[in-house]
Amino acid sequence: MEPHELVEGHVTLVDGRAQHIHSVLKAQVGQSLKMGVVDGPLATGVVLEMGPQGHVLLSMELGELPPPAPVDVVLALPRPKVMKRLWAPLASLGVHRLAITNAARVEKGYFEAQTLEPASHRPLLVEGLQQSGDTRLPQVSIHKRFKPFVQDELPTMFPGTRRLLAHPMGTQRLMQVGLQPQERVLLAIGPEGGWVDFEVQLLEAAGFTPVTVGHRILRTDTACVALLALVHEALASAL
Amino acid sequence: MEPHELVEGHVTLVDGRAQHIHSVLKAQVGQSLKMGVVDGPLATGVVLEMGPQGHVLLSMELGELPPPAPVDVVLALPRPKVMKRLWAPLASLGVHRLAITNAARVEKGYFEAQTLEPASHRPLLVEGLQQSGDTRLPQVSIHKRFKPFVQDELPTMFPGTRRLLAHPMGTQRLMQVGLQPQERVLLAIGPEGGWVDFEVQLLEAAGFTPVTVGHRILRTDTACVALLALVHEALASAL
Repeated sequence: MEPHELVEGHVTLVDGRAQHIHSVLKAQVGQSLKMGVVDGPLATGVVLEMGPQGHVLLSMELGELPPPAPVDVVLALPRPKVMKRLWAPLASLGVHRLAITNAARVEKGYFEAQTLEPASHRPLLVEGLQQSGDTRLPQVSIHKRFKPFVQDELPTMFPGTRRLLAHPMGTQRLMQVGLQPQERVLLAIGPEGGWVDFEVQLLEAAGFTPVTVGHRILRTDTACVALLALVHEALASAL
Repeated sequence: MEPHELVEGHVTLVDGRAQHIHSVLKAQVGQSLKMGVVDGPLATGVVLEMGPQGHVLLSMELGELPPPAPVDVVLALPRPKVMKRLWAPLASLGVHRLAITNAARVEKGYFEAQTLEPASHRPLLVEGLQQSGDTRLPQVSIHKRFKPFVQDELPTMFPGTRRLLAHPMGTQRLMQVGLQPQERVLLAIGPEGGWVDFEVQLLEAAGFTPVTVGHRILRTDTACVALLALVHEALASAL
């Protein structure tokens, strides 16, 4: 639920969420449901009323604020269709900050895509959070100029992060870079066709280590999911 | 290319592949291109003619047969829309055998889906291979009865495999099960909503170890990509 929907410890739902409680969860009055406030705490909702017109009234007990995901991403903007498919998986896998950037192999027109409007992608991010039981909305920023972003903004936006650059030519495997349990990772994911040499040099100068995940070239959406899963697992296995 | 397209060391392409060579690769006569024969060797094609009607004639030098992927998958059939999205990523990540099975939380109607017809999904598998530079088509089989499949067919279909079951309740992390370099992995991926207890028991009796990749519940397509990436990386890091 959104923060403003919570009024004196109660929430009334009337939309797709109410339908989900009726038809998928088939909840009964008195039943407890796992819920959460967008960018707020997890919560336990107890069903007080299941209305005949489909509304659901719940009382809400707030729980913990989930910790922010230990991973930030710099993503060269993929084509709109692929970007649109990526919001929900990115949110469900856990990304704290998502900096979308230009690159030599990104078509300029992609930045006009509707899916970059918050009104368009926020529902998809929330859908991803609902799926995975998280509440922390990824913080999305858009950077149309690659060089000033990497040189000037990145160091202050992502202080103290371990910076990894997915690159087929990397010599170290991602699982072997020796991540530490409390480390935060900043992962750079290039465009279809890859970063050009100049971009790799800029990223390396900004502290990124090239890592490989094998010789297979993956579509951007597949690569994003694969890389995020690997970074999360590397961090969790380091515990 | 398909095996029958290769005639006396030459191939003539007229379809989307020819367009790709013209428009995306912008190839010139004399240029070498990375190619491959479906379920056959990798190859190097040299452009001999770029026809005015769009055809491309190449001479072909055959290379090595890529080794089969060291991972097989047992997948509880997801809903058709999700299954359709999965073919290309599965092929690009590398799956040797894909056994699609029923489960308590799979709707029977899903088995009628057009996407299960080879004519419908084979082009998507080939697309995934093209993307990743592999030629080995995943071997797909469909098993509508879960119990006889697990008890009777699975042991002979997948002899000598290390069997892992992705389960939120697993106590071991996937990266910590100690895979050996030359091992083959058989990975079981459940339906949306998970395997029911009875199914987990059957799979455990068939030698599957439950492994966890964290508390986040992922959509089936995201989970498949994440798990396959992790298994491939665990095997590669064991080398």
